[in-house]
Amino acid sequence: MNKPYYSVIFTSKRTEGDDGYAHMAQKMEELAKQQEGFLGIESAQGEPNITVSYWESLEAIKNWKANTAHLYAQEKGKQDWYSWFKVRVCKVEREYEFFKG
Amino acid sequence: MNKPYYSVIFTSKRTEGDDGYAHMAQKMEELAKQQEGFLGIESAQGEPNITVSYWESLEAIKNWKANTAHLYAQEKGKQDWYSWFKVRVCKVEREYEFFKG
Repeated sequence: MNKPYYSVIFTSKRTEGDDGYAHMAQKMEELAKQQEGFLGIESAQGEPNITVSYWESLEAIKNWKANTAHLYAQEKGKQDWYSWFKVRVCKVEREYEFFKG
Repeated sequence: MNKPYYSVIFTSKRTEGDDGYAHMAQKMEELAKQQEGFLGIESAQGEPNITVSYWESLEAIKNWKANTAHLYAQEKGKQDWYSWFKVRVCKVEREYEFFKG
C-alpha cells in the first residue's frame, strides 16, 4: 500500500438471528473489492465485531458510502441487523509490520 | 471522546499454543488503561485478529509504546506469540454512531 491512505473502522453489535445478514455481508465485501480506490478489508468477531477497510482516498470512501446497493444494505443494517454500530474514518499516519523469521 | 484523537489498529496472527499470551494480554490491557491519554480499546478474533486502541494524542501512543513492561511484552510477542502483526497509527478524521431506537 502506498501512503497516505485511509482506514474505515466499523465496530458493531448485531441483533439476534441471521435474517439475510451473512449473505448480504458477503455480497457487500465482494462489491467493496470492486470499488476504485479499495485497498483491503479485514473482519474479526468480538464484542464489538470489528471490520476495517482500507482506501486510497476520502473520495473513494465517499463513493463507496454512496453506492446504491450499499445504501440499501446500510438501511437494512439500521432496521434489522445492528443494535449499535460506529464508523470512524481515519488517516493512516504511519505503519510497521512484523514477519516471523 | 473529544476530537481530534488517534487510533492504533493492531492486526495479528498468533503462533500455536498459549505460552503465557492470554495472561500477558490481560496485563497489558490493564496497564494501557492506566496510561495518560488512553481513551479505549476493542479486540476481536479472526484472520487476522484485530485490536484497536484509541488515544488522545500521538504523544500518548509514543509513551505507551516506550513503557518498560510493554516493551518486554512487545519483545516476547516477536519471539513467541505472533507469526505476523501490523501496526497502523491513524488520525480519526470523523465518526458517526448508530443506536437502535
